[in-house]
Amino acid sequence: MHPPLIPAQLAALELLRDSRRVLLTGHERPDGDCLGSQVALARILAAAGHEVILLEPDPPEPRHAFVVEGVDLRVWDGGELPAHDLCVLLDASELERTGRLASAFATSSIPKLVIDHHPHAGDAWWDAAFRDSAASATGLLVRRIARSLDAPLDPIAARALFVALVTDTGWFRFGNSDRESLLLASELVGLGVQPDVMYQRLYQVFDRAHPRRVSAALDALEYHMDGRLGVILVAGSAGVELDPPAAEDVLDLVRSVRDIEVVLLAREVRPAVWKLSARSKTDYDVCALVRRFDGGGHVRAAGATLHGATDDIRARLIADAEPGFEREARA
Amino acid sequence: MHPPLIPAQLAALELLRDSRRVLLTGHERPDGDCLGSQVALARILAAAGHEVILLEPDPPEPRHAFVVEGVDLRVWDGGELPAHDLCVLLDASELERTGRLASAFATSSIPKLVIDHHPHAGDAWWDAAFRDSAASATGLLVRRIARSLDAPLDPIAARALFVALVTDTGWFRFGNSDRESLLLASELVGLGVQPDVMYQRLYQVFDRAHPRRVSAALDALEYHMDGRLGVILVAGSAGVELDPPAAEDVLDLVRSVRDIEVVLLAREVRPAVWKLSARSKTDYDVCALVRRFDGGGHVRAAGATLHGATDDIRARLIADAEPGFEREARA
Repeated sequence: MHPPLIPAQLAALELLRDSRRVLLTGHERPDGDCLGSQVALARILAAAGHEVILLEPDPPEPRHAFVVEGVDLRVWDGGELPAHDLCVLLDASELERTGRLASAFATSSIPKLVIDHHPHAGDAWWDAAFRDSAASATGLLVRRIARSLDAPLDPIAARALFVALVTDTGWFRFGNSDRESLLLASELVGLGVQPDVMYQRLYQVFDRAHPRRVSAALDALEYHMDGRLGVILVAGSAGVELDPPAAEDVLDLVRSVRDIEVVLLAREVRPAVWKLSARSKTDYDVCALVRRFDGGGHVRAAGATLHGATDDIRARLIADAEPGFEREARA
Repeated sequence: MHPPLIPAQLAALELLRDSRRVLLTGHERPDGDCLGSQVALARILAAAGHEVILLEPDPPEPRHAFVVEGVDLRVWDGGELPAHDLCVLLDASELERTGRLASAFATSSIPKLVIDHHPHAGDAWWDAAFRDSAASATGLLVRRIARSLDAPLDPIAARALFVALVTDTGWFRFGNSDRESLLLASELVGLGVQPDVMYQRLYQVFDRAHPRRVSAALDALEYHMDGRLGVILVAGSAGVELDPPAAEDVLDLVRSVRDIEVVLLAREVRPAVWKLSARSKTDYDVCALVRRFDGGGHVRAAGATLHGATDDIRARLIADAEPGFEREARA
């Protein structure tokens, strides 16, 4: 259940152990796995006597404020990087994913370590890496690192790892919710993490207008392809107000319709500028679909930005989505 | 993590082991824990050479049809009970909870065994009992029984226990999602259960009108008590159409508003007859509230039936809910 470490991972542990001042960072607009992994690793390293700084390209969302309590987290102000002997990138394996910080890191000669569960296509640019694309979350890799270092998890690290885990497994609903993930969840709850409190802090954080925003978006639902495709266009101010977590609730609800295979939700965030969220319940590859609009993501969850008037966007989405159903039928 | 068995539980195991023909049953309108526990125990006993029949007062919901595949499940036709040496009641500890079957069981002299995680207030009427009100689900008790009997879990039993577990822990979101529950989930996934497939089969089963039903109910949301109380009255045909699982989606969405502490959703199921679902996110005791309407349930989830016109129901709900907030403030 706990895979044995490969030589590259052992080398990564060595580098981590030998570095006194460690700077941790993650990708732009950090999510729960990115922040949770950094916080847990920070607590583990600090307890082992390392100096640790978290330096982020973007501030955490308000709902993640509780996760980063108890660590020294700074949002980069554009100045000199704090003094460090090792730079660790978590939950991403491309330096460009650190956004505003990318060029500062690229021009620094300090050794770089990557800890990540995303597939990496290009060359290895890092000095060492602890990677496993079969892991459901980067948090799982941090747990493996702690085990290898014989480092205990304190309550702050346990909470952070729980946030990492539930973020990337869709609260254990996604197919990546494997044995190791649920075993870690069990361990963390044993360390005092309260799932109901975590759920409330992460997901029950909306303002009073949330139910009406969701309702307005649901009213815009259109069925196509015999009910296999759901399309929602939320134009104007309603589009601006439908923030990403609210959109996620809408996408969840539409997916709960049995016959739905694919949902496309486009929010007009500025006049004629649309953020598209695409979700699939089957092998239908929404990532292949959004690539037509220069978007990206995963097979079952992807996104893109589109430009045009409402009717134009609708027509393009439906026309571009249809061939995927035929491909799927042939497969 | 696996609590040692108490003498009463050991006696229950003894009785189970010694009975050749075992009849399993559960409560009226069986939920996932009730059915899943019976199916898992049936598979375990059948593999050990027992004859096993599941006899239910009510048929399983369509979405649970896959859970009961692979066992001999009968819905009582009102005739003679099938021949058996032991009757096992799972997920309830009052014989009346078996509904239509209650009098047939009460007049039978065959030994009775109770396997349940609900608190039981009255006297012990059973011959033996395997009870633990600290367990998140009856499925957990079936797992403990299997371990004590040294019985392996086959894929059908594993799937059934997973359904039991996710039903009663709110897919691991509720406070009862403890270490043992998540450890069992990990074990079951290790045995081949696919959480994403389970989620789809249990929760993504709605017809096309579902999003509109949810939206209509959300539009009826009223805030009271400074936004701490949400009240939804769905009258007429919309009330009839809002079936319990759809109502659950509405209750979830309203609870995701940060300031909401209590949600009261009343659906008019027949003219002037309302089904009330009450939910709490805090220590506010909705069970105490619904008892004023002869309802029942738990502190955080309870229900009742009310009679009256829409405005009358609204006024009573708000008036009766208010004192609870004052009590809570004093506590």
